[in-house]
Amino acid sequence: MTAVQTITLDGEFAMRRGHINQPTLAFETWGTLNAAKDNAVLIFTGLSPSAHACSSDKDPSAGWWEDMVGPAKPIDTDRFFVICVNSLGSCFGSTGPASINPDSGKIYRLTFPVLTVEDIADAAVHVLDHLGVAELNTVVGSSMGGMTALAFTQEQPGRARRLVSISSAARSLPFSIALRSLQREMIRTDPAWQNGDYDLDGNGPVAGMRLARKLGMITYRSAAEWAERFGRERATDFTHADNPFGIDFEVESYLESHANRFIGSFDANCYLYLSRAMDLFDAADHGGSLDASFSKLQLESALVIGVETDFLFPVSQQEELAMALNTHINDVTFKRLPSLQGHDSFLVDMDRFRPAVAEYF
Amino acid sequence: MTAVQTITLDGEFAMRRGHINQPTLAFETWGTLNAAKDNAVLIFTGLSPSAHACSSDKDPSAGWWEDMVGPAKPIDTDRFFVICVNSLGSCFGSTGPASINPDSGKIYRLTFPVLTVEDIADAAVHVLDHLGVAELNTVVGSSMGGMTALAFTQEQPGRARRLVSISSAARSLPFSIALRSLQREMIRTDPAWQNGDYDLDGNGPVAGMRLARKLGMITYRSAAEWAERFGRERATDFTHADNPFGIDFEVESYLESHANRFIGSFDANCYLYLSRAMDLFDAADHGGSLDASFSKLQLESALVIGVETDFLFPVSQQEELAMALNTHINDVTFKRLPSLQGHDSFLVDMDRFRPAVAEYF
Repeated sequence: MTAVQTITLDGEFAMRRGHINQPTLAFETWGTLNAAKDNAVLIFTGLSPSAHACSSDKDPSAGWWEDMVGPAKPIDTDRFFVICVNSLGSCFGSTGPASINPDSGKIYRLTFPVLTVEDIADAAVHVLDHLGVAELNTVVGSSMGGMTALAFTQEQPGRARRLVSISSAARSLPFSIALRSLQREMIRTDPAWQNGDYDLDGNGPVAGMRLARKLGMITYRSAAEWAERFGRERATDFTHADNPFGIDFEVESYLESHANRFIGSFDANCYLYLSRAMDLFDAADHGGSLDASFSKLQLESALVIGVETDFLFPVSQQEELAMALNTHINDVTFKRLPSLQGHDSFLVDMDRFRPAVAEYF
Repeated sequence: MTAVQTITLDGEFAMRRGHINQPTLAFETWGTLNAAKDNAVLIFTGLSPSAHACSSDKDPSAGWWEDMVGPAKPIDTDRFFVICVNSLGSCFGSTGPASINPDSGKIYRLTFPVLTVEDIADAAVHVLDHLGVAELNTVVGSSMGGMTALAFTQEQPGRARRLVSISSAARSLPFSIALRSLQREMIRTDPAWQNGDYDLDGNGPVAGMRLARKLGMITYRSAAEWAERFGRERATDFTHADNPFGIDFEVESYLESHANRFIGSFDANCYLYLSRAMDLFDAADHGGSLDASFSKLQLESALVIGVETDFLFPVSQQEELAMALNTHINDVTFKRLPSLQGHDSFLVDMDRFRPAVAEYF
């Protein structure tokens, strides 16, 4: 069963650095749009999730934010009409590099235009139009989704009354750019990538994707959490009699198991496009500076949440975002959480994140 | 010109997990051993440097710690007889996986026994014996060299009166193990590695080594330094007309240039062995706990220096080391430096490191 809905746009969709024809956008919705049409909440995702944020009758499988979205949850689907969009450029129903170009009949691969976070935001507007949502109660995003939510408020002033940005940033800084650039290089230097022309039904650049996912997992958590969780415990479920550089420690075994689950579920070219979109994002591009850029915002309020142990989207960047928003928006709340799980805290430290989000809604 | 000296041991050298025959050890010395033979200082290096810590008449090229070692420098070669050893397992004159096994006449490659930090420390004892140094004034090490220096004081109680440990740790924790494990996987999954049987005169696993070096560089510095240094500046010296995922930002260009310099200068198998040796190190192995282990130390004093922005060898681990030493040694100094350059600070933030080391000596 699936709860995914799709729309396919007529004609050309203009992107920042190119255009595509008749893209499809996948999304899920929960709850009901009220008569006043003022209870819609739009969720943008991080790099890898699908539109399946939470379970429903149509798809009872757990969503990627199951503890946050649903009846009587902090983003309460009894009160709100909640929409989650699979990002343009991704591979879970929305058009991306792994989709067929209707003009050529061939898979886009590297002929897909350079993707920007703004393009992802723009595409979602068509979903709102389709659903009859003229104005959002709130636009919400975490990680890359926070960048997209911010871009949405900049691209579409007045289309959302409120913004929730979680573990995100107003721009990418060189440390995170370097890490993502290296992840992309891991995939690109895997000979099986074949310059993007790998067999989509086959394995593709599995070794490169495994490396990239492992580096992602290392940067998504925190050293303190892992010290507590793994210490110097030795691995038991992998042996390396055949390889003197195999797995010794439990932490290596953990990375191997999780990376193996990721491989095959995410298209390598889509990963490359979405990863680079994050590097390219700078909210100041919309006006020359964050201040000039944010002067055009039409938000009633904003909530910015950051985590102290997040070193990919450091809390200092989120404080910067909150301060810049505060210059132009009356009601800005900044929450600095002491979660131990680094960037991933919004997915796992629900005891801290649920009340922080619930209080705002 | 070279100032490197070598000794070749007679017979078998016992390692923790195997043995090798007639290994060669490369080292350099500066200054003169005094009549009392009490002014010798031994320096252990990090993973990648050679024994060339500083310039001399015989080799005027700059050494890897040129600002720290030399006449009238903090480690003053006018006062001290300074010895720097190329680690066993490395590839700058000492025997390692890239050396020929005298028993078989073939290059060791992966037949080299598992290397431990303790083996590196034990091997250096033979250099001291050769030089007539019965007791060291001080054993000094930074990064992996700090682990080796600590292992030396544990393996050879009484052989050094003082210990200087810089940006090191008493054990590897899962975050740094995960990063190093991933670096090794980058090399191992490069098809050119050929399970260690690459052509030593050719290029070898260049793509894997480039990735590993870049991840190293990312983890050796700090996000704050890079934000200040690169910001979102665009690259000008690389173009990527042929590749949509090439280099956009100055930080990517910086990594590419530096990684290209490293490749070819360091043997991939040696890198794998030395990297894993760091993971395996736990000073508590010598006695079941740090406390039990350190009770056997015979040191008069110790200096531990850590850097607040170091996330590979976090300052908390160095504080832990200093505290554990302090239980058994009368005179322990712990210096916590606010350098911005992360783990690499001891190589570049000389304005802070020179006085910290000079004061101790």
